[in-house]
Amino acid sequence: MKFWQKLFPDHRSVKPRCSAIIAAAGSSRRMEGENKLLLPLGGKPVLAHTLQAVDAAAGVDEIIIAAREEDLVRFAELCKTWGIKKPVKVVAGGKTREESVLRAAIEADPDANLLAVQDGARPFTTPELIDDVIESARMHFAAAPALPVKDTIKVAVDGIVRNTPDRSLLYTVQTPQVFDAQLLRAALTSAIEAGAVLTDDCSAVERLGKEIYLTEGLEENIKITTPWDMILAEAILKRKEG
Amino acid sequence: MKFWQKLFPDHRSVKPRCSAIIAAAGSSRRMEGENKLLLPLGGKPVLAHTLQAVDAAAGVDEIIIAAREEDLVRFAELCKTWGIKKPVKVVAGGKTREESVLRAAIEADPDANLLAVQDGARPFTTPELIDDVIESARMHFAAAPALPVKDTIKVAVDGIVRNTPDRSLLYTVQTPQVFDAQLLRAALTSAIEAGAVLTDDCSAVERLGKEIYLTEGLEENIKITTPWDMILAEAILKRKEG
Repeated sequence: MKFWQKLFPDHRSVKPRCSAIIAAAGSSRRMEGENKLLLPLGGKPVLAHTLQAVDAAAGVDEIIIAAREEDLVRFAELCKTWGIKKPVKVVAGGKTREESVLRAAIEADPDANLLAVQDGARPFTTPELIDDVIESARMHFAAAPALPVKDTIKVAVDGIVRNTPDRSLLYTVQTPQVFDAQLLRAALTSAIEAGAVLTDDCSAVERLGKEIYLTEGLEENIKITTPWDMILAEAILKRKEG
Repeated sequence: MKFWQKLFPDHRSVKPRCSAIIAAAGSSRRMEGENKLLLPLGGKPVLAHTLQAVDAAAGVDEIIIAAREEDLVRFAELCKTWGIKKPVKVVAGGKTREESVLRAAIEADPDANLLAVQDGARPFTTPELIDDVIESARMHFAAAPALPVKDTIKVAVDGIVRNTPDRSLLYTVQTPQVFDAQLLRAALTSAIEAGAVLTDDCSAVERLGKEIYLTEGLEENIKITTPWDMILAEAILKRKEG
């Protein structure tokens, strides 16, 4: 056990309480004006797919959705329409992803010792994947699903390549990213105060020098960002159903 | 003009001669035993899609396919079946990608001053994309199409995150990668002699300290590696056709 782990309660001996935070307050700016979370995917909104998977995860006790002001009512109704069974809160997000997740984290059940942050735009997350990451976070305080990078990645500045990082060390990280609740709240608060620009929640925790444990992600657990991703999503859905 | 550019002929005043090298000698080890290049995509083998795009690029003068021994005849026949019009050579590849590309580079027309290396498994490359990269390489000696990375990338060792590189500097590089012919042959020879493990051809040129210029890639210009990629490829094809 690492020294800092002693600062936190030992989650390993008891079933943790885990609140799932759904990051759903983004602007969908790469989706040609549409709110990507409401796009139909096999007749069901993208967000409904995500919520149903989270709802079905054994380790999740409640769901908190961080939404834009204009979506608060709509998302609450969506939960009813699509039969979400666990307790749901819909809270107003902030200007950045970190602010939105922190607001949701503050609204979580105070007894929750784990927080699982899930992109609303990852409709192919599964209950098994979620429970797997929760289990790892229970042991290690911070965990996320990831897959080895397939493409060659370049670091470039002004359109000229600076270097090629060793691909064998590179992973694309997915969600849910699951953390000790106190750790995540402290990490997000610190990141926001420092004005850090982050692209995921692990990064906030990494800033504090904590270790993130990677679990095995799913290739189909894509994040919907561009119209091309919706094409892929439709194809994945067909394959899963057939 | 950089000092080293003076070492090479000036391609900017004349239309360059360009030989396209198709990297098609891979083992498809992530494709569950199938040769991914022969998988049907809308009724046409993956490799035939790639070859037809390369064949239609105005800047390409000849095509050299680096193939496994057992595919030499099959790929030559495939070129006939799918109506490839430019001169084609099919040559036996080596044990590694670099060896295969170098063997093809040695077989190229000695008058070719540019070599365009194209993954056989990127069936959605387009003549416009290829000509665009050739034009950049004509100016800059080394060019490749790339897109900004959308996912958060982690550097991890033994399943534990070490750091998160700044995503705003990261690009996924595609093919064709186009180079001054002498530069590419020298770079591959050097990389092979040094036993360097590389995942693309730019990396060999970067080893020599040369600058690679990035052009804008295409989101649909995916490399087929896993069965999931074939699902995406079918969906892309449908979207392109409809």
